[in-house]
Amino acid sequence: MEALRELSRNHVLGSPTRLAVMLYLLPRGRVLFKELMEVLELTPGNLDSHLKTLEKAGYVRIYKVFADRPRTAVEVTKKGAEETTDYLKTLKKIISGF
Amino acid sequence: MEALRELSRNHVLGSPTRLAVMLYLLPRGRVLFKELMEVLELTPGNLDSHLKTLEKAGYVRIYKVFADRPRTAVEVTKKGAEETTDYLKTLKKIISGF
Repeated sequence: MEALRELSRNHVLGSPTRLAVMLYLLPRGRVLFKELMEVLELTPGNLDSHLKTLEKAGYVRIYKVFADRPRTAVEVTKKGAEETTDYLKTLKKIISGF
Repeated sequence: MEALRELSRNHVLGSPTRLAVMLYLLPRGRVLFKELMEVLELTPGNLDSHLKTLEKAGYVRIYKVFADRPRTAVEVTKKGAEETTDYLKTLKKIISGF
């Protein structure tokens, strides 16, 4: 039951969109905003709002890079990587019971 | 990527609290409101609001039973069981990649 309670307590990764963003970022380290938007089929506004929540929680860093023209990049932080890995462990524990 | 997109699309099970409710219900079929509240450490108002969303989506049935006194029971529907099992499959697919 503890794992189920843990699941319902994580408000950052509780959103499946934010979880999807973090799971896409985790093995890549850094991706462009545009790529995230396309891969996850999100609108700019929707992705932006979820990224702000992730940034506020310290899970990602958002900054500008120059590739032809200025682009927004998103990078997973140490904290973000740890929290996502922990959340994955919780999910695994729960799922293995089914 | 399709699995990640699927994850971000399910608005019913997207809430970790509703997912936890369904995962607790799935192997049990029917539980009392009080038990769900205690096990998942939720307030009555919070649980009630999530159950209404699940009921509206056709995932659970909510009704009164008499055990000493009237109590509220929650029962998983066929649709709820199928959708939760599908969602678990999606989660498994994603998690197995990490």
